[in-house]
Amino acid sequence: MNYKSFFDNALNRLHEERRYRVFADLERIAGRFPVTIWHAPEGPREIIVWCSNDYLGMGQHPKVVGAMVEAATRMGTGAGGTRNISGTNHPLVELENELADLHGKESALIFTSGYVSNQTGISTLAKLIPNVLILSDSYNHNSMIEGVRQSGCEKKIFRHNDLAHLEQLLQEAGPDRPKLILFESIYSMDADIAPIGAICDLAEKYGAMTYIDEVHAVGMYGKRGAGVSERDGVMHRIDVIEGTLGKAFGCFGGYIAASHSVCDAVRSYAPGFIFTTALPPAVCAAAAASIRHLKTSQWERDRHQERVARVKAVLTASGLPVMHSDTHIVPIAVGDPEKCKAASDMLLTEHGIYIQPINYPTVPKGTERLRVTPSPYHDDQMIDALAAALIDVWEKLGMPLNRALAAE
Amino acid sequence: MNYKSFFDNALNRLHEERRYRVFADLERIAGRFPVTIWHAPEGPREIIVWCSNDYLGMGQHPKVVGAMVEAATRMGTGAGGTRNISGTNHPLVELENELADLHGKESALIFTSGYVSNQTGISTLAKLIPNVLILSDSYNHNSMIEGVRQSGCEKKIFRHNDLAHLEQLLQEAGPDRPKLILFESIYSMDADIAPIGAICDLAEKYGAMTYIDEVHAVGMYGKRGAGVSERDGVMHRIDVIEGTLGKAFGCFGGYIAASHSVCDAVRSYAPGFIFTTALPPAVCAAAAASIRHLKTSQWERDRHQERVARVKAVLTASGLPVMHSDTHIVPIAVGDPEKCKAASDMLLTEHGIYIQPINYPTVPKGTERLRVTPSPYHDDQMIDALAAALIDVWEKLGMPLNRALAAE
Repeated sequence: MNYKSFFDNALNRLHEERRYRVFADLERIAGRFPVTIWHAPEGPREIIVWCSNDYLGMGQHPKVVGAMVEAATRMGTGAGGTRNISGTNHPLVELENELADLHGKESALIFTSGYVSNQTGISTLAKLIPNVLILSDSYNHNSMIEGVRQSGCEKKIFRHNDLAHLEQLLQEAGPDRPKLILFESIYSMDADIAPIGAICDLAEKYGAMTYIDEVHAVGMYGKRGAGVSERDGVMHRIDVIEGTLGKAFGCFGGYIAASHSVCDAVRSYAPGFIFTTALPPAVCAAAAASIRHLKTSQWERDRHQERVARVKAVLTASGLPVMHSDTHIVPIAVGDPEKCKAASDMLLTEHGIYIQPINYPTVPKGTERLRVTPSPYHDDQMIDALAAALIDVWEKLGMPLNRALAAE
Repeated sequence: MNYKSFFDNALNRLHEERRYRVFADLERIAGRFPVTIWHAPEGPREIIVWCSNDYLGMGQHPKVVGAMVEAATRMGTGAGGTRNISGTNHPLVELENELADLHGKESALIFTSGYVSNQTGISTLAKLIPNVLILSDSYNHNSMIEGVRQSGCEKKIFRHNDLAHLEQLLQEAGPDRPKLILFESIYSMDADIAPIGAICDLAEKYGAMTYIDEVHAVGMYGKRGAGVSERDGVMHRIDVIEGTLGKAFGCFGGYIAASHSVCDAVRSYAPGFIFTTALPPAVCAAAAASIRHLKTSQWERDRHQERVARVKAVLTASGLPVMHSDTHIVPIAVGDPEKCKAASDMLLTEHGIYIQPINYPTVPKGTERLRVTPSPYHDDQMIDALAAALIDVWEKLGMPLNRALAAE
């Protein structure tokens, strides 16, 4: 049996569909973010990263790095076991308290990643509610879709952010059936925001439970960085808030925040939580330091929004097809997978700018894009250099620029 | 709709079945392993941990801690993105090379945990082999079972380590059908070892692919710490080796090592790999330092085996019901969930010894046990104190001791 052929064939399909991905080998430099060393085939060189999910640069913040170093020095590297088998480390317990406080919930539960939070969190929650009907936004992340699939529960998909469609489905389900609404606050690839308050209205009207993914919002929105639901004043109306420590908090891991009952039930029943090694104490200590800092420091959030506005303005004024964005994510339309990949390659090799291409299946075919994520540490010069590089690439690839705007 | 009642009911079921778990809040002390601070309800106190999966104490090794501190200081805390979106950090790339070399394979691929390696690794592999039949050992870990389930492929379970049964299933499948054998080298709860060479014989005879989970063996067995398959001289005959960085290597994360084709295909198709934030550079640097050290240092492995032998000898001579073990894991039979929990509680509160109870569903009902894991750093005095504490607890709980042995 030639097993190799199965895998080679699978890879060939990706090459043919222009979906084969090559990862850039990067070395971050603490204190110089977004400057990064790219280990290129020809050797290392410095580049500017414009697509990091370390949205606020907290992964290099002295308090956060200091907390990791201190905890590693004092407690060592690993947790040494699952949560039940000696892995429940004190910084992890403190981090869960920090997260419960952040979201104004009774409790929080940490998973090894945001992906696992959704996957095992949703599937476990749903299984514990007899005959539940899951109502899931059509743009929900792969990890949520996997959670729904693994729950084995009946699901209906509502059109993205479409309140009328959601209401119709809630109505059809009838008042006696338990219902779980799954949605995100910020949809990362389209940079739009859910009508959280209005979804809560519907949930209350029809007696549904709500689960929100705030991974692209925690740290960045709300007075204490608890996300868009905090900013909108509706956080207390959401039953389960899922977040990540790996994006704006600059670390690693995921979590849910909810009532004692929900967290304790998921803790007790979720295989992807029970049978896995706990997060290292140093990672937990760093994440807690980052959350604590962002609970009181507004500087990062203000500067972040100001930088985002500037990037949007400069790129739009350059005639680039900046897509509409209600958020800190700045997608630029390309609409062709080969050109999207070529643009990314040219930016990196010719301009020392790293923005990886977003192609199918992450976004629908024909809507390929570059996804720019400004941080508080991208200065004016970097923004101008980005605009110049993009214009150069757009011209070389024969892609249209809106000269009317560019001439203004 | 009273959603709270669903979760409260689920928790009540656990309480009724005596399966509700309470986690011990522990604070490790680098340099003093296995001494640990237990944050007890009454306040912190020092205890001895006897159930850590940091089997060799590498989580406190100066080289490993040093590597984490150095990388965190130089590169910051988080990876900043998925592997494809700026998260592929240089220490991660170096770690993958280190792992490929360790296992003598062309390639390695890192996941956020051993659990995820199995879950998304197995399901992705199996889906890429048309009409594959999965043959899975009946004692396989939950993460492997989840991987099989998520693959949606047909599976047959062979009786634990039963070569005749495996051969029968291979034969029945016929020569033309692709077959994937899934098994572990060391079964952690029963402390027995698979006949790896004989399974490879069968795989070759019937044209099956092999996937082994070596999470409880890497670092500890084989000349360079590559696991039992290295020790047995059959590592090159296994197609996919899955391991963890979170046990004997003292860090966090999981991996597979295999051919270029297999790793590249899993890399390209596994949702649980693609859509998740990469491991932090500091975790990768620490893991690489640990692996490198254990490739050449035999001291930890020798001392570990010597300590294990001593623990087995002392506890057996004390008349305690030490279960048969071919490995470094020393299970002690209790056979009753309440007594198992009570024994664990008494050890902790009265003797300052932490060994958590292993009850159903981790092991079958009636086979409840304590699971002791000696490390190179448990000294003679700690072993004697362990024996004395266990005897005291056994007597107080009215459990039988083999006095004939104890009197010798």
